[in-house]
Amino acid sequence: MVILKIGGNVLNNPTALSAALDYFASLSEPAILVHGGGRKASEIISEMGREPKMVDGRRITDAPTLEIVTMVYAGLINKQVVADLQARGCDAIGLSGADGNAILAEKRPVKTIDYGFAGDVLGANGPLFKTLLDLGLNPVLCPITHNRKGQLLNTNADTIANETAKTLAAISPTGTVSLRYCFEFPGVMKEIKDPTSWIPTLTPASYAGYKADGTIAGGMIPKLDNAFAAVAAGVGEVVIGDLAALRAGAGTRCVSL
Amino acid sequence: MVILKIGGNVLNNPTALSAALDYFASLSEPAILVHGGGRKASEIISEMGREPKMVDGRRITDAPTLEIVTMVYAGLINKQVVADLQARGCDAIGLSGADGNAILAEKRPVKTIDYGFAGDVLGANGPLFKTLLDLGLNPVLCPITHNRKGQLLNTNADTIANETAKTLAAISPTGTVSLRYCFEFPGVMKEIKDPTSWIPTLTPASYAGYKADGTIAGGMIPKLDNAFAAVAAGVGEVVIGDLAALRAGAGTRCVSL
Repeated sequence: MVILKIGGNVLNNPTALSAALDYFASLSEPAILVHGGGRKASEIISEMGREPKMVDGRRITDAPTLEIVTMVYAGLINKQVVADLQARGCDAIGLSGADGNAILAEKRPVKTIDYGFAGDVLGANGPLFKTLLDLGLNPVLCPITHNRKGQLLNTNADTIANETAKTLAAISPTGTVSLRYCFEFPGVMKEIKDPTSWIPTLTPASYAGYKADGTIAGGMIPKLDNAFAAVAAGVGEVVIGDLAALRAGAGTRCVSL
Repeated sequence: MVILKIGGNVLNNPTALSAALDYFASLSEPAILVHGGGRKASEIISEMGREPKMVDGRRITDAPTLEIVTMVYAGLINKQVVADLQARGCDAIGLSGADGNAILAEKRPVKTIDYGFAGDVLGANGPLFKTLLDLGLNPVLCPITHNRKGQLLNTNADTIANETAKTLAAISPTGTVSLRYCFEFPGVMKEIKDPTSWIPTLTPASYAGYKADGTIAGGMIPKLDNAFAAVAAGVGEVVIGDLAALRAGAGTRCVSL
């Protein structure tokens, strides 16, 4: 089973998006697609005369912003991606976290920063995903969730992919869930400017070593911490790479040993 | 099995919408909700500095308008309705026509007027709806469809409700599909200004009589022609009324005899 997360670098480039959807539609395994859409949301927010507000890369989601991200993620992007997959013969079904209670979340508690209607994931609905996949349907998840009290919430798409993979791993044969993050680099790189320096495999031990000697630092740390949390929870592999890498079976594979 | 269509008079009034969702969630039969959202779409089109274009009550859907109606119908309205139903313990799943190929359409041919990306329904996916209902999921349909070639299309919500009911009738025991249109009047009325003048039951024969003597005229004709086409196709009843009427089992029932 494959959970593929596509990021903004893919969504914002029609050629890259088309290639990513070709790849997704060609997968022989049951597969779930997860997408974000932050850049498009910021464009529409600006078009509607508002100012996108971000703190440390996270959006402050006030009530009008929630309406706009719901329109952009669950409407514009999700439905076009689904229609594009249907055109490729892939029986896609677009879902927010509210649909079939796919992803339950809670409003992020206010500590130093009030993120507004931002959702922290409480759980993904493994049986729903399993049922849809068994029917031959491919869920396409957008980063809008709900709290089961009628409140929609803006949620990080990486987290949705991660939680969905963990939940499916818990109800699937050992090692059969593959979580793939399609991002802008061929993999986790030792030297950011050298694309040939990508690391083919990371284990918890080698990752600890690369962190200790400073080879892996900055924004990759939370990404990889989440990847190894998924591996620890039973996800067979977490692969990080650009589309060419993923197609070639390359990229950085995070595994338990 | 119930297919309930709610119109703009319900969607644009939070109290009425809440009551309609209470009613839908309380139905003991497997049920599908169909919604429009034209007024909200026109508001957002204006907010984004464009002019809503209508001819005879039908929207001219150019490419930017299609993006906006997709955002509003499939995103904003559909997901809030689904979240509101989930809060009522109703396991709703929001779908556009692209999702699971639920509603296949074709771009309306250009005759005297070019409606742009307007969709004429080719067929509803009965087996998909049946499968979801059997799983205890309640589809919530928005009026966006696709042509299976990657093109989303703006489609009349009454037509979606009608086609869905007909398709389900074809695969269900005789007379078990009830199509209900929630609109602003207690039923089809003999005197538009007299709410007590609603007609409890219409058959093809009595409908023909009311048309012939001019009692029923104008905008009710296409609505009722469609209703009787559904009845002729095996839908057990088509009920037209306001929410109070539908709750009370009143309204105008269109039946085969």
